[in-house]
Amino acid sequence: MAVKRRVGPGTTAAFQGEAGAFSHAAARKLLGEGVRVLPCPQFRDAFAALKDGKVTHAVIPIENTLHGSVLENYDNLVEYGIPITGETSIRISHQLIAMPGTRFRDVEKVYSHPVALNQCLEFFRANPRLTMTPHYDTAGSVKMLKEERPERAAAIASEAAARIYGGAILKRNIEDDRRNFTRFFLLSRGGALERAGVPWKTTLVFSVANEAGALFKAMACFALRGVNLTKLESRPLRGRPWEYLFSLDLAGRSTDRHVAKSIEHLSEMTSTLKILGSYQPIA
Amino acid sequence: MAVKRRVGPGTTAAFQGEAGAFSHAAARKLLGEGVRVLPCPQFRDAFAALKDGKVTHAVIPIENTLHGSVLENYDNLVEYGIPITGETSIRISHQLIAMPGTRFRDVEKVYSHPVALNQCLEFFRANPRLTMTPHYDTAGSVKMLKEERPERAAAIASEAAARIYGGAILKRNIEDDRRNFTRFFLLSRGGALERAGVPWKTTLVFSVANEAGALFKAMACFALRGVNLTKLESRPLRGRPWEYLFSLDLAGRSTDRHVAKSIEHLSEMTSTLKILGSYQPIA
Repeated sequence: MAVKRRVGPGTTAAFQGEAGAFSHAAARKLLGEGVRVLPCPQFRDAFAALKDGKVTHAVIPIENTLHGSVLENYDNLVEYGIPITGETSIRISHQLIAMPGTRFRDVEKVYSHPVALNQCLEFFRANPRLTMTPHYDTAGSVKMLKEERPERAAAIASEAAARIYGGAILKRNIEDDRRNFTRFFLLSRGGALERAGVPWKTTLVFSVANEAGALFKAMACFALRGVNLTKLESRPLRGRPWEYLFSLDLAGRSTDRHVAKSIEHLSEMTSTLKILGSYQPIA
Repeated sequence: MAVKRRVGPGTTAAFQGEAGAFSHAAARKLLGEGVRVLPCPQFRDAFAALKDGKVTHAVIPIENTLHGSVLENYDNLVEYGIPITGETSIRISHQLIAMPGTRFRDVEKVYSHPVALNQCLEFFRANPRLTMTPHYDTAGSVKMLKEERPERAAAIASEAAARIYGGAILKRNIEDDRRNFTRFFLLSRGGALERAGVPWKTTLVFSVANEAGALFKAMACFALRGVNLTKLESRPLRGRPWEYLFSLDLAGRSTDRHVAKSIEHLSEMTSTLKILGSYQPIA
């Protein structure tokens, strides 16, 4: 569902990747089809663009069903202190794209990011004449086809990348696994727009001492108040071998009474605790 | 610490990547310097090689401090049912490697896997004449230098890759972040070799209904018996939106009385539960 009403003339979203990247699709879903975008080379550049006021929003991937959490972006969220104000998921679906006039039977080289190439192995096994050719970016490989016009070449990227760079889709949905979804966060320095009747989620990170039962006690703060957790993940804190950093999603808003009391209780036993934001997901 | 005594004449380890990959370094650390190896194109190929009896062991990455868990390998562990019998960590340290005779000031193109290139951004910013050139594999890019001898080219890979393919290290430890560690599991169809006095760890996966407090109750099975958890991670089960799959590491062996009772208790409230193995980490 695109949220058309959110797009004002000044709405601009930074994301990592070229125009037509999956983050671009997420930005359109979160902010509306007409959103203006600022493609950035690295995740940090998207955070910095928002912090410096060059854009009104940033859109970042936070986890993928096949590849797990993008830990780097949890670190960026803590470092830049910009709140999460929205969330959505995108199904990652790969298209074989070529410039108009190229027929599938003529294609020999297929360009894309290695992660995308590796998600289409059955397609390459079924078409052994095709050579997987690593490129920097999925959408960027279609942009390269347009600019450099290599012969007998195609790229693997999103449908949006085909549209943006004038490519033709030769084969649709060539990914091995249909259960490939990426979850994105919307960031903005202003607060979240409220939508009536849509449930809230809250994301926070905290660290606790690595002693028996420490995590259990942390969980108790929520369980004893009936607050439901929808994600929990631990990672070791390098250089501090006895401490773990946890990221946690819960059902509710940080200002809800039960949630606020749970977090207050949790803060009694954590060495660091940061609320990264409360937001209403867009399905 | 290399475990020299473990290497028998028949010891062979499968891993994903070319000879000289970081998984190769992990195999040497786990099984001894002289271990014979079987490089495989994909993770699944390493699991299959072990299952089919082509090798005695497999070595797979399971999490990285910057990139998080390799969820694909949790799925492979469940699917292939081969037990984890060892664990170690490797610091991921990137070297700029060229064929002998190439001077640093002549290098223009630098080949490597995009993930490795992206971990050396400060090096590329400090040396703007260098072009990042994506390749399939870190060690494979050194192998390519050796076989194809492109001019003015270098590669980013491990010290082991330089040694194996006869490359010279032009610049050492060019990675941005020194806190880049990958944790590897050793798999074998036989049981774990016991080392006296070394503490055990156990890894398991389970799913629970997504109802308030379900995870808390699961944690209680361990907390009430003083069993310490060293890792916990949740991921949504696609297609079953109300269920979550958890992976968990605990301190202890699955046959320890408290651990066994905790797992038995846990099984009363889970829809699936699998013990992936008990093992003694090698530091």
